[in-house]
Amino acid sequence: MRARLFTPGPTQVPERVQIAMSTPLMHHRGLEFKKIFEEVIADLKYFFQTEGEVLPLTSSGTGAMEACVVNLLSRDDQVLTVAGGKFGQRWGELCRTYGVQTHTLEVPWGEAVAPEEIEAFLKAHPKTAAVFLTHSETSTGVAADIETIARTVKERSDALLVVDSITSAGVLPFKMDEWGIDVAVTGSQKGLMIPPGLGVVALNERAWAKTESSDLPKFYFDLRKEKKAQENLTTAWTPAITLFMGLREALRMIREKGLENLWEKYALLAHATRQGVQALGLELFAKSPSDSLTAVKVPDSIDGLAFVRHLLEKYGITVAGGQAHLKGKIFRIAHMGYYDSLDMIAMASALEMALADFGWNFEHGAGVYAVQKVFMEK
Amino acid sequence: MRARLFTPGPTQVPERVQIAMSTPLMHHRGLEFKKIFEEVIADLKYFFQTEGEVLPLTSSGTGAMEACVVNLLSRDDQVLTVAGGKFGQRWGELCRTYGVQTHTLEVPWGEAVAPEEIEAFLKAHPKTAAVFLTHSETSTGVAADIETIARTVKERSDALLVVDSITSAGVLPFKMDEWGIDVAVTGSQKGLMIPPGLGVVALNERAWAKTESSDLPKFYFDLRKEKKAQENLTTAWTPAITLFMGLREALRMIREKGLENLWEKYALLAHATRQGVQALGLELFAKSPSDSLTAVKVPDSIDGLAFVRHLLEKYGITVAGGQAHLKGKIFRIAHMGYYDSLDMIAMASALEMALADFGWNFEHGAGVYAVQKVFMEK
Repeated sequence: MRARLFTPGPTQVPERVQIAMSTPLMHHRGLEFKKIFEEVIADLKYFFQTEGEVLPLTSSGTGAMEACVVNLLSRDDQVLTVAGGKFGQRWGELCRTYGVQTHTLEVPWGEAVAPEEIEAFLKAHPKTAAVFLTHSETSTGVAADIETIARTVKERSDALLVVDSITSAGVLPFKMDEWGIDVAVTGSQKGLMIPPGLGVVALNERAWAKTESSDLPKFYFDLRKEKKAQENLTTAWTPAITLFMGLREALRMIREKGLENLWEKYALLAHATRQGVQALGLELFAKSPSDSLTAVKVPDSIDGLAFVRHLLEKYGITVAGGQAHLKGKIFRIAHMGYYDSLDMIAMASALEMALADFGWNFEHGAGVYAVQKVFMEK
Repeated sequence: MRARLFTPGPTQVPERVQIAMSTPLMHHRGLEFKKIFEEVIADLKYFFQTEGEVLPLTSSGTGAMEACVVNLLSRDDQVLTVAGGKFGQRWGELCRTYGVQTHTLEVPWGEAVAPEEIEAFLKAHPKTAAVFLTHSETSTGVAADIETIARTVKERSDALLVVDSITSAGVLPFKMDEWGIDVAVTGSQKGLMIPPGLGVVALNERAWAKTESSDLPKFYFDLRKEKKAQENLTTAWTPAITLFMGLREALRMIREKGLENLWEKYALLAHATRQGVQALGLELFAKSPSDSLTAVKVPDSIDGLAFVRHLLEKYGITVAGGQAHLKGKIFRIAHMGYYDSLDMIAMASALEMALADFGWNFEHGAGVYAVQKVFMEK
C-alpha cells in the first residue's frame, strides 16, 4: 500500500526537492552554499511578498515565533494576542514566558477573530506595542481576515502587527508589504513543501527598528546576529544545510508556478474537499475555513481516534486528528503542499470507504462526485 | 572532479544515511516516527555512555548549548567558563546573555586548560553552580583532559560539569556516567555523521534536578517540555524529521562498529595525519591535539586564505580555515565522520600537491608515506 501524507505539516515533498536534498553536502561557509543562500533569500522575499528582511532559522516554526517575541519586545511592553486555537494560544504563552504584559482575546475555537474586537482593544489600550495573530489556525482550520485586521491596526495604533503565517504563506493570498503586515513567520514543512527543520521570520523596517531597542535576552534566536551573517550570505549558526538545498528547489518550483496560481490552486482543492465532505453528510468545523486545510467534525456515532487510525492502516492515508480538547472530535486534511486535484479525489474516495467501514449512512460516490464536479466546472 | 569534504562539521555523510533520509516523510506524531524516535533515544544513550536523559532538539549545537544555560541556571548563579577558543568563548557569551555571574578562565588558543586552574578557581569560589567546558575545541583542534577535570570538579565542589562534546562525542573516548560528567551536548554533523540541524543535550539526574528550579526564561529550548513529550515518544515541537531518519541509520552504524573501535579508528586517522603533516615540514597548531580534527599552521610564506581556496578549486578538497584571529593562519582537517585511512591518504596527497603549487620546499612523497606508514605499522 502506498503511503499518502495529508497532514497539515509535514506535507508531501516534491520529487525535485527530494532529489535536491540527496546531492552531496557542502560546507555552510563556502561559495556553493552562499549561492544557494542568496537565491533562497531572494525567493523568500517573493514568497512573503516583501522587500523587508527575511531571516531563516534552523528550528521549527515555534522557534521562529519565539524569535519574534524576544527580538521585537521589551520588558515593559504590553501586547495583544488572540487565542482561537492552539497556535494562537502559543503567542500568549511565549509573551508571558518573557514577562511581557500580555492581554489575550479569547475567540471560540472554530471561529475567526472579528476585526472590530481588535479595534476596540486598541482603542482602550493605545500603548499596545504589538498585536500577535494567526492567519491560518492549523488546529481549527480557520482563516482570519488579516488584510482587514492589518488596515485596522495601522489606522488605530502604532502597534506592530506580527502574523503567524505558518500555514498561510504561499497558500492563501498573503501580501506582507501591501497589506501593512510588519512581521510574518513561517515553517518549512507547509507551503514551502520541504521537510520540517527551518523557520523563517520576515520583518519590515519598522519592525527591524524595534529589534535594535529590544531588551529581552536572546542568543540562538538573536535576529541581529542573523542579519549580520546574512550580509556575508550565510547564517549566524550552522544551518540545516540539506533543508536549504531542498528549499532552493521548492522556491524555484513556486516561482515557476507563480504565487497567484498557487493561491488559486489551493482555493480550488479546498473548495472541492469541502464540497465532498459535506456531500457525505459530514460537517465542517471551521466557520471561516482556511484553504490550507479542512477540519471535519467526526460524527458522534464514530470514534474519531479509531477513524483516523483506520484511514492509515487500511488506506495508507495519514490525516491529522484534533488537538487539545478537539482530540477525537475532528480530523484535518491538508491542501497546502505538493497536491493536485486527483490527490483530493483519492482522499475523498478513501474517506468514503472508511466511512462505509464505520457504518456511516451516506450516498456512495456522492463525495467523490462532489469533489470531481468542482474540478470539472472550473 | 569529485568533491571531498574534510571540514570539522559538516562531515562526510555515509551512503546508508543518505538513503535513509531519502525515503518518504512520515508525520511526527504517528507510530512510524515514534519507532524511529525510540531507537534514536536508546542509541544516543549508548553514544554518550549515559543512562540519563537524552533530549534531541531541532537546532544547531549552539541551540543545544543555550538549552543547557537556560535550563540549568538561575539568575543569581555564578559559573565558570573556559575560553581557549571560539566555542569555549561561546559558553561565556551565553551565560552573560542571561545575566548569570560569569567568571572566565582565559587559556591561550592552541593550549588545553590545566585541571589545576579549575581546581584553584573552585577552591576560591566554592559556590560555583556550574563549570562549562569544551572537550574538543573545534576552532583550535585542542582536546581537554575531561576525565581528570571531571574528577577534580566532583572532588572540589558541587558544581555541575557541563561539557560541549560537539566534536568529541562518538570520536574521542567519552564516558559520561563513568567520568561523572553531568551534562553533555552535541550537534548532528560531527561524530553522528548526519547533516546539521539537530542538537542533543544529555543530562544525569543531578543536572535534571536543576532544571526543576531554574528561573531563566525559555520556551523553544525548555527541556522539561521535551522530556514530557519524550514520554510519548516524540518531541515538544515539530522535529527535523528527515534528520531523525538519518540519525537512526547513523546510530545503527555506530553500534555495529562499536564505540571503542570508532575511538581507535579516529585516533589512528588523526595520528597518521599529524605524522604526514609534520613530515611535510608543517607545524601543528594544537599543543594537546584532538583526534577529531587536526589544525595545521600555515607557513608564513603562504597566503592561508588562498591556500584553502586552492585546495578546493584544484583538488576538490574542502578544509576549514581559521576562525577569528586565526583567519588565514591555520587550516583544519576533519577526521571525525565517515572517513577511512585512504581518505586521509588522499588528503595528504592533495596537501603535498597544493604545497608544491605554492612553492613550499619539502621532500615529495614524504607526507603520503608518513601517513601510510602509520597504517602499515598498525
